[in-house]
Amino acid sequence: MITTPALAPPWSTTEWLNTPEPLTLERLRGRVVLLHAFQMLCPGCVSRGIPQAQRVAELFADAPLTVVGLHTVFEHHAAMRVESLRAFLHEYRVRFPVGVDAPDPGGEDIPQTMRAYGMRGTPTTVLIDARGRLRRQVFGAHDDLLLGRELQTLLLEATSNQEERSTAAPPGVGCDDAGCALPGTGG
Amino acid sequence: MITTPALAPPWSTTEWLNTPEPLTLERLRGRVVLLHAFQMLCPGCVSRGIPQAQRVAELFADAPLTVVGLHTVFEHHAAMRVESLRAFLHEYRVRFPVGVDAPDPGGEDIPQTMRAYGMRGTPTTVLIDARGRLRRQVFGAHDDLLLGRELQTLLLEATSNQEERSTAAPPGVGCDDAGCALPGTGG
Amino acid sequence: MITTPALAPPWSTTEWLNTPEPLTLERLRGRVVLLHAFQMLCPGCVSRGIPQAQRVAELFADAPLTVVGLHTVFEHHAAMRVESLRAFLHEYRVRFPVGVDAPDPGGEDIPQTMRAYGMRGTPTTVLIDARGRLRRQVFGAHDDLLLGRELQTLLLEATSNQEERSTAAPPGVGCDDAGCALPGTGG
Amino acid sequence: MITTPALAPPWSTTEWLNTPEPLTLERLRGRVVLLHAFQMLCPGCVSRGIPQAQRVAELFADAPLTVVGLHTVFEHHAAMRVESLRAFLHEYRVRFPVGVDAPDPGGEDIPQTMRAYGMRGTPTTVLIDARGRLRRQVFGAHDDLLLGRELQTLLLEATSNQEERSTAAPPGVGCDDAGCALPGTGG
Repeated sequence: MITTPALAPPWSTTEWLNTPEPLTLERLRGRVVLLHAFQMLCPGCVSRGIPQAQRVAELFADAPLTVVGLHTVFEHHAAMRVESLRAFLHEYRVRFPVGVDAPDPGGEDIPQTMRAYGMRGTPTTVLIDARGRLRRQVFGAHDDLLLGRELQTLLLEATSNQEERSTAAPPGVGCDDAGCALPGTGG
Repeated sequence: MITTPALAPPWSTTEWLNTPEPLTLERLRGRVVLLHAFQMLCPGCVSRGIPQAQRVAELFADAPLTVVGLHTVFEHHAAMRVESLRAFLHEYRVRFPVGVDAPDPGGEDIPQTMRAYGMRGTPTTVLIDARGRLRRQVFGAHDDLLLGRELQTLLLEATSNQEERSTAAPPGVGCDDAGCALPGTGG
Repeated sequence: MITTPALAPPWSTTEWLNTPEPLTLERLRGRVVLLHAFQMLCPGCVSRGIPQAQRVAELFADAPLTVVGLHTVFEHHAAMRVESLRAFLHEYRVRFPVGVDAPDPGGEDIPQTMRAYGMRGTPTTVLIDARGRLRRQVFGAHDDLLLGRELQTLLLEATSNQEERSTAAPPGVGCDDAGCALPGTGG
Repeated sequence: MITTPALAPPWSTTEWLNTPEPLTLERLRGRVVLLHAFQMLCPGCVSRGIPQAQRVAELFADAPLTVVGLHTVFEHHAAMRVESLRAFLHEYRVRFPVGVDAPDPGGEDIPQTMRAYGMRGTPTTVLIDARGRLRRQVFGAHDDLLLGRELQTLLLEATSNQEERSTAAPPGVGCDDAGCALPGTGG
């Protein structure tokens, strides 16, 4: 049975860094979103997850894609307060916006957004399409080749949606001395 | 000015390994082709290019994609004869088909296919779409995220072409406990 | 001009983790000491310095060598308090003793031990011989081959000192099916 | 039972590259020797063993140490003839002398020196002291920290031997702004 993908749950946050104002899924509608859930003291996040999210932000800078971090602390809460996170982002040169997941109102360890998405731990990579639908959720290390592939599926859908609404010209395809460019890769 | 991509030049080879019969672009029509041009004594090919091509072959095994190696020797010809190449492929566990680029009939160093594609050295990664057109040619190391993105562009085109000819059903999209699957990623 | 190496300055600390009681250079006399000065939010420490110190602790477990960490916070003080450090050591599985460098009494950023050693930043690797003398201080990444070489110089000196005081038997040297053992390498 | 280390077996070679004349253990007496046995189509040699031997040659350039390669082909003989080896050394920028192990006179696969040392495969790292004695033989990847340690044991022995024969001055030990130097590390 094929199910229609559901809308991604809204984000519950207490604070945002690297952005003048809070981000919401509604405000990002029309763009593909890579949500990277991490903890600043999670070794796999630091060595692999965050660097991957940073490279996506750089390499897809020309595309309608936004990389968003989510600090989903579910252990050692006192060790990872927002002043520590702020220094962490500074030292690791993380430039993308990062929201702080809101603590559980009942005092449980798992914060609200992490629970709403049913995440199993950190790092978790979530892909949300331009219509705000949850399309992919991966716990742990994710292969660059597959991630690049999945992002392009969503980006082409987003472009296709736009074209249906506008008078679409076919995307340019060109060859020069350096090679031949695919649509949407800039080179 | 936007140019229409040209057909990829045919391959001129003297021998094929890892395949019962020679491959040609005509026989691969309908499939996306990643052509990896290398030399067995090229350090950048051994450390990065060939491993990347191997991972593409594994990770895209479910897709209409064929990875093809091309041994484009343009220096140290005596050092890289076919018996050395055969041992190399065995030791490095390269399983995809590899053609041996045909030497220049005039005795020049650069072999025929390498010249026809205007390659600047090894490794070179060439992407050819399902209609046999040359769409991308990259000399040197190529980023996994970008390669995954570019391959998916061509794979979705290939699928779209097929659907136009058949009675196309929308691709299945599903979520389960492990996450939510994008079309064509099997995961 | 050749100078006699001076005694390493004493350590000024406010707290110790991973050890039931504080460590001092006096108590470590007779053992070679690798002092690894780091900050928990220093990327070079996390990716290279601390893993190297951990490998030294494991690979030289049979030798009269003690690996000691020193948390020398000189920026983002509020972000790296001891409760954050404790969680960091837990998550990164750092088992060796770690002292917290005492803050400057005058309120300057650089803590006391860091200043006493004239360290230029983190990570800094300090080698102290069995007589408590400062023998090597390296700022930044340090090559494993050179570090192994330097440690063995100090270890052989330490052994030689002991032998002079005892009735020294020559260290055993043996070959077996697995190979031939150097003194002090256990294999 | 502690055994006295035996003299390293002499090398049987058919050819030498990167050196104007053949090397022998007799001619290297007085120097520590790191013998790196490899095959040019052995992935572990190419990715780890040879780079390690190259770094030893560079980092210990000031020490009485010679790094020697030995091409011990025991499979795919036709694929790794000397013209291929020569191109390999050129492409991988191997500068240290490399001998070609002499084939078995009875036609067996394992060449003579490899058999004399009882090597179990490639890469194999052999350490020979300044008196020509076999002190360490490791099959497979060897840790840099341990290798640096073992080399220094043999280098200090070699220096100590020389000092016994001369009027030995104690090795210089010095501190400057950059740090404090151990004997024999130049740094």
